[in-house]
Amino acid sequence: MQPIDTLLCARWIVPIEPRDTVLENHAVAIADGRIVALLPRAEAETRYQPHTTIDLGQHALLPGLVNAHTHAALTLLRGLADDLPLMRWLQEHIWPAEQRWVSEEFVRDGTRHAVAEMLRSGTTCFNDMYFFPDITARTASAAGIRSVVGLIAIDFPTVWAADADEYLDKGLAVHDEFRHDTLVRTAFAPHAPYTVSDGPLERIRVLADELDIPIHMHVHETAHEVAEAVEKHGERPLARLARLGLLSPSLLAVHMTQLDDDEIDQVADAGVRVVHCPESNLKLASGFCPVSRLQAAGVTVALGTDGAASNNDLDMFGELRSAALLAKAVSADASALPAVRALEMATLDGARALGWDDDIGSLRPGKAADLVAVRLDGIETEPLYHPLSQIVYALDRGRVSDVWVAGQHQLRDRRLTTLDEEEILASTRRWSERIGASDAAAGVE
Amino acid sequence: MQPIDTLLCARWIVPIEPRDTVLENHAVAIADGRIVALLPRAEAETRYQPHTTIDLGQHALLPGLVNAHTHAALTLLRGLADDLPLMRWLQEHIWPAEQRWVSEEFVRDGTRHAVAEMLRSGTTCFNDMYFFPDITARTASAAGIRSVVGLIAIDFPTVWAADADEYLDKGLAVHDEFRHDTLVRTAFAPHAPYTVSDGPLERIRVLADELDIPIHMHVHETAHEVAEAVEKHGERPLARLARLGLLSPSLLAVHMTQLDDDEIDQVADAGVRVVHCPESNLKLASGFCPVSRLQAAGVTVALGTDGAASNNDLDMFGELRSAALLAKAVSADASALPAVRALEMATLDGARALGWDDDIGSLRPGKAADLVAVRLDGIETEPLYHPLSQIVYALDRGRVSDVWVAGQHQLRDRRLTTLDEEEILASTRRWSERIGASDAAAGVE
Repeated sequence: MQPIDTLLCARWIVPIEPRDTVLENHAVAIADGRIVALLPRAEAETRYQPHTTIDLGQHALLPGLVNAHTHAALTLLRGLADDLPLMRWLQEHIWPAEQRWVSEEFVRDGTRHAVAEMLRSGTTCFNDMYFFPDITARTASAAGIRSVVGLIAIDFPTVWAADADEYLDKGLAVHDEFRHDTLVRTAFAPHAPYTVSDGPLERIRVLADELDIPIHMHVHETAHEVAEAVEKHGERPLARLARLGLLSPSLLAVHMTQLDDDEIDQVADAGVRVVHCPESNLKLASGFCPVSRLQAAGVTVALGTDGAASNNDLDMFGELRSAALLAKAVSADASALPAVRALEMATLDGARALGWDDDIGSLRPGKAADLVAVRLDGIETEPLYHPLSQIVYALDRGRVSDVWVAGQHQLRDRRLTTLDEEEILASTRRWSERIGASDAAAGVE
Repeated sequence: MQPIDTLLCARWIVPIEPRDTVLENHAVAIADGRIVALLPRAEAETRYQPHTTIDLGQHALLPGLVNAHTHAALTLLRGLADDLPLMRWLQEHIWPAEQRWVSEEFVRDGTRHAVAEMLRSGTTCFNDMYFFPDITARTASAAGIRSVVGLIAIDFPTVWAADADEYLDKGLAVHDEFRHDTLVRTAFAPHAPYTVSDGPLERIRVLADELDIPIHMHVHETAHEVAEAVEKHGERPLARLARLGLLSPSLLAVHMTQLDDDEIDQVADAGVRVVHCPESNLKLASGFCPVSRLQAAGVTVALGTDGAASNNDLDMFGELRSAALLAKAVSADASALPAVRALEMATLDGARALGWDDDIGSLRPGKAADLVAVRLDGIETEPLYHPLSQIVYALDRGRVSDVWVAGQHQLRDRRLTTLDEEEILASTRRWSERIGASDAAAGVE
């Protein structure tokens, strides 16, 4: 009998690899934070001597979800300004609030709240873009969630950095600081084509190659942004990125709602990875990402919630359901983006997009033990004919019962083990009183 | 001090009328199943002597949600066949399962499960279309939820009726049977233009006028259905309904994803009410209902989940959020269908569409005490800047804590008071074993 740390038994296991597999009455053996084996429960009980055995009953176990695009700290601005046109939302509410309030404390407290929400809804890894990425990384790592923090760059000065050089220098220092933290990775995060000029983009391309890390960027989010670029520079943003040498498997292009056929081919040929944020795209009326066409062209498409200021949640189960529903309507085909693909986008494709699929995204021996357990018994999820599509089309995030990251039990029967919810809420309430008052005052002017 | 039955106190009350109102620290006084008053809590405590006082703390109280289109019994087929083109879904799975299994017991058990799910998610009234409407009505009424049951008519024989005359005769008998049940109303429910011929539609028009009840019908659900009608009869279905005199305030036209500008004007002029089912339309790739344009033309647009076989839930909070998000993208305007309107569609507009707004749909003295309480404290719903839009954009149905129908406490801190969840689940499992086996066997043929 081989000693292991944990044996997780569940009625159903959805390992994501091989595709479209649902194992019944199997178990996951975990040691040193990694998956040792995935095997029938009866066999596991004769082969392993676990320190802890957890019998999950009528649950399904699947890989932890990967939120491939968010701005965690912005959770503090959730619902500050809804139902506004994009530019009024940004110029009259989000940007003034950020200018007034963003600080190390804002990022720490906002990220902590975001991590609590993500763990409670089954997300075990998030790809972030925000100021003070060192604070984001430290907060996430301490809470026990996996993160890729964006080494942000933008043409204008902020409280984080004064100019292009300082953004990149501070970014490199963050990369260096966390290079031995197994829960943290980094990516360059030039904000968007319309906010970052050629010089810093060229330097980022070189540095990303040297460090072998991704480049995380908003690209073609709105028709307005594309039209403006054509008018000002005679070039679509994607063409400019191609000219600068940025179209490569390193590029994580977020949103991509405006793509013609040639661009889809170009993106596919270059191996660019796309992150689809369906709910944010809907809420901000940004447009429809052609997910099925991108996938048909062979492009890896991951899923992200975007920030809570434009979603308004960090709920990847909701997001993958929205993605599956929306793709059918957009491609006028009810068989488009089936459940199995939607779950894959939220797990393995997310890991692939982040270049982390050697370690996460599916339940395979040798990979990290990042798992989520969901309850499939109950009024909302019965009758149960097909567990995999039930998870996509009928499950709420409230049915997430347990979460493990690198084998650590982060959510236990819906209670967080490393974060204090009451403390987080008390902190959030202090922030929201101040932020709400200043937003209301600005509105009166 | 006036004696009353119940005083409900909550941090926020969203009465829906007047529009865009959020009352803080108010109370709802209830007697004999009706709202007596809505007033500041302090004042309520000096004026009323309640038998029961319930202090809901950091909750918001709003009118119970009105699900304006569903097929409750089909909850037993939830998730039986996902990700299929519409005709394969119907012809290979749903219709064979219905033909094999639909009976009084199927309708009773499926409806009971659906009612449990609806009450647990804040729905207090549903508009149904299915066979055995007497069973639906009896089951719903016994469980204490309000229903409008459809007196179904369809050209082909079913286990419920053999021909047009029998459908209508049995429908009239159901209308008669429940005319003194305050929780039950009826509507004629000719299935769709492509399944009901002129004769029964003309008779329904006359009978609906005589009885003063609505006509509930799927109309222009898909482009295919419209094209087929034009090809076969040289006429769009809406034109045919107009010719038959059916376009009037009695008509509840469900789906309406295919409408040109003239049809929108025609529908508005005639006072037709529309029911929008965004998630079903997405999942079946039916198309996009032009909600904002209909509303701008003055049309009352209610919201429905459709059946759980094509959604796959009966979650009106999810549905109103989907409606609000989708309308923005469809009209390319982030200010389209704001939170206040989405909530109104799910409550007062639903009541208006059913012709029941004299009694339900808003919290006004004299109306029935149909209410839902939702928790706004917690990781998922804080920070809290604007309670009304938080309910629309950040709330899950799992945050529904309490529900009252006609003053009766139907859901108490997430426990149903009149239905036994375990008993329902045991019954559903017996059905799903048999239905799943026959569906799988049919698939092998």
